Amino acid sequence: MINPTLLQRRSDELAEVGRFCFSRGWLPATSGNLSARLDDRHVAITVSGRHKGELDASGIMVVDLDGRVLSEGLRPSAETELHLMLYRRDPSIGAVLHTHSVHATVLSRLVGDTLELADYEVMKAWPGVATHATRLALPVFANDQEIGRLAGRVEQALRADPSLPGYLIAGHGLYTWGASVMDARRHIEAFEFLLECETLTRRMTG
Amino acid sequence: MINPTLLQRRSDELAEVGRFCFSRGWLPATSGNLSARLDDRHVAITVSGRHKGELDASGIMVVDLDGRVLSEGLRPSAETELHLMLYRRDPSIGAVLHTHSVHATVLSRLVGDTLELADYEVMKAWPGVATHATRLALPVFANDQEIGRLAGRVEQALRADPSLPGYLIAGHGLYTWGASVMDARRHIEAFEFLLECETLTRRMTG
Amino acid sequence: MINPTLLQRRSDELAEVGRFCFSRGWLPATSGNLSARLDDRHVAITVSGRHKGELDASGIMVVDLDGRVLSEGLRPSAETELHLMLYRRDPSIGAVLHTHSVHATVLSRLVGDTLELADYEVMKAWPGVATHATRLALPVFANDQEIGRLAGRVEQALRADPSLPGYLIAGHGLYTWGASVMDARRHIEAFEFLLECETLTRRMTG
Amino acid sequence: MINPTLLQRRSDELAEVGRFCFSRGWLPATSGNLSARLDDRHVAITVSGRHKGELDASGIMVVDLDGRVLSEGLRPSAETELHLMLYRRDPSIGAVLHTHSVHATVLSRLVGDTLELADYEVMKAWPGVATHATRLALPVFANDQEIGRLAGRVEQALRADPSLPGYLIAGHGLYTWGASVMDARRHIEAFEFLLECETLTRRMTG
Repeated sequence: MINPTLLQRRSDELAEVGRFCFSRGWLPATSGNLSARLDDRHVAITVSGRHKGELDASGIMVVDLDGRVLSEGLRPSAETELHLMLYRRDPSIGAVLHTHSVHATVLSRLVGDTLELADYEVMKAWPGVATHATRLALPVFANDQEIGRLAGRVEQALRADPSLPGYLIAGHGLYTWGASVMDARRHIEAFEFLLECETLTRRMTG
Repeated sequence: MINPTLLQRRSDELAEVGRFCFSRGWLPATSGNLSARLDDRHVAITVSGRHKGELDASGIMVVDLDGRVLSEGLRPSAETELHLMLYRRDPSIGAVLHTHSVHATVLSRLVGDTLELADYEVMKAWPGVATHATRLALPVFANDQEIGRLAGRVEQALRADPSLPGYLIAGHGLYTWGASVMDARRHIEAFEFLLECETLTRRMTG
Repeated sequence: MINPTLLQRRSDELAEVGRFCFSRGWLPATSGNLSARLDDRHVAITVSGRHKGELDASGIMVVDLDGRVLSEGLRPSAETELHLMLYRRDPSIGAVLHTHSVHATVLSRLVGDTLELADYEVMKAWPGVATHATRLALPVFANDQEIGRLAGRVEQALRADPSLPGYLIAGHGLYTWGASVMDARRHIEAFEFLLECETLTRRMTG
Repeated sequence: MINPTLLQRRSDELAEVGRFCFSRGWLPATSGNLSARLDDRHVAITVSGRHKGELDASGIMVVDLDGRVLSEGLRPSAETELHLMLYRRDPSIGAVLHTHSVHATVLSRLVGDTLELADYEVMKAWPGVATHATRLALPVFANDQEIGRLAGRVEQALRADPSLPGYLIAGHGLYTWGASVMDARRHIEAFEFLLECETLTRRMTG
């Protein structure tokens, strides 16, 4: 059984991070999806097609780690498997957030299959990073409506580098995660900041 | 007779979408106009010259589909016919929203008579679009203070492509619509997002 | 005698327009100044050095049209004469607002002594403009800490074109006015929108 | 002993400036740090790793001017010494604020060891500046995780020019200060405005 108090708490956290990201323009037009772990077999995730800036408990549902729906009559995001794959492979992950900003969309269409980030102080926001003298090759995957196939490609990249803090899907947005909703939100803030920095740098240096 | 509860509800929805779009900078200086269908013969529409970020019931009036004013002493937007033409030709349209953003204004003056949009995940926000592998030729009409003539040109484009989800007027802004105010607002969010993406892409790729 | 209710009402309006413009980034760091006419001899104007995003009645003072201070112990903005000159020459002016945005600052340093604006729908926000097919040569004056001399140059430009709806000071910002605080605010919104459009257009075509 | 009322007041001021700067995007992902003087031997400073947009009293702690922790069990920001050095050398400094904006990050990586600022009206926001006809060579220091060494380099620059109102760390952000939290915040607003102006100018003329 799912603890209803825990579900309510996680739903509130997801609604709050949804409002915050929407206010920044990172979740336009019902795009994106947000989830949080409930226990070792279940996660709370946004219902398909809901507006992420106006979530309430009715916009959050429960699925198990194999994708079985526990909230009768509701359909989870089409991208649910991209969340579940992460929870299955890493028990320390407590939340997965997928945003959809202008900067992530544009950069991910322009940079090829990797975005290089280096020497930014804000990279210390990621777990295990203690200095700005850091280099990250952020993977950019081609967009794909076959989510199982896309999840397979992401999993392969994570096997090659388990410390990866996120990835981009071209023309689509950012996936990142953390031990808690607040941790994952901090990672979004750091990534969106870096994507803005990279965009601005490229515009200034031609 | 117009149902007063329904009129109040639609007025509240239009006021809220006005506040939201104004807060994003998409309705500066009393620009733009907003309407919602009341029944098969009438629509609620913004009064001419009102500030769209501070609408209340006094800023919304009733006209019939032929443009006759039912709210004594009030003058509807000069662009009312651009709304009515859409309601007359498609009974499934429940709301028409016209915004006026910097990105819509600038792009519409630069791109010629069509803005090509392709391969963006957010295009799934439009009805009937199931994949990012989508292409839309968004029409850009020359601005015209003779609204009947402009409406005629828009209607011609809609006859050629009835699935068109919106259009631009050069130096003036975006028109889009939907089954409800919330649907039309989702389309605005998707369009404004795409206009920002296109602007940024053009700046980065020169 | 100044009517205290009227002074309170104008002070509230100036505080509100200050909060709005500050929230948009148009009044950073105590920059800018705001005034409203009280009667044919007096205006309410912001006290020197106050933060325009956090004005209350103590940040608004009364001066007469010759610059004499009626609020004991308070010092009006150093640029007060740029306001008073406008009130003296045009009795229909009810408010003068001076903002200080990034776009006004940057464009005014780059364009020389005139910024050409043409064919924007939003130009209909100014009094007497009925079509987008409009052209405005917005004057840009060199910045000058001798405010009397600067006011003289502005007055000369207004004599040449009494319909001028505003002007820029290079590296400094925008002055505009209207029959009421709300009218003048609408003119700011239109100008700031146009300055953003011009900046973006130059970046995309430059 | 630290006066608890004073500590509460300074904590409230730091929390408020944190919320403001976070809302502008200048303190993403727990970056930045904020402090205020309590007396001639002590300062209140943000606890390491706290989110600056959601500070409360538990996120502010007390250290003395030699870096000794007076708030049991709490760890101050790793950059505390950059604050303390300023308080030790100038008794008129009442607050030190370090923000972390996109514009500060990008410009500080591109301009070399000095950012030249000249002829902006907003430069009058700094103490002792009475005219826009002003020139400031804002130092940019290389980022360094050895904070003592970085503080030494900053101190050297301040000895050479004691009137310096702030400095940048490359890829990291802005430090500025003032007689009070409100004064230091005004200096942030002026600097961030100027950094945006410089970025935009370089994009338009570059």
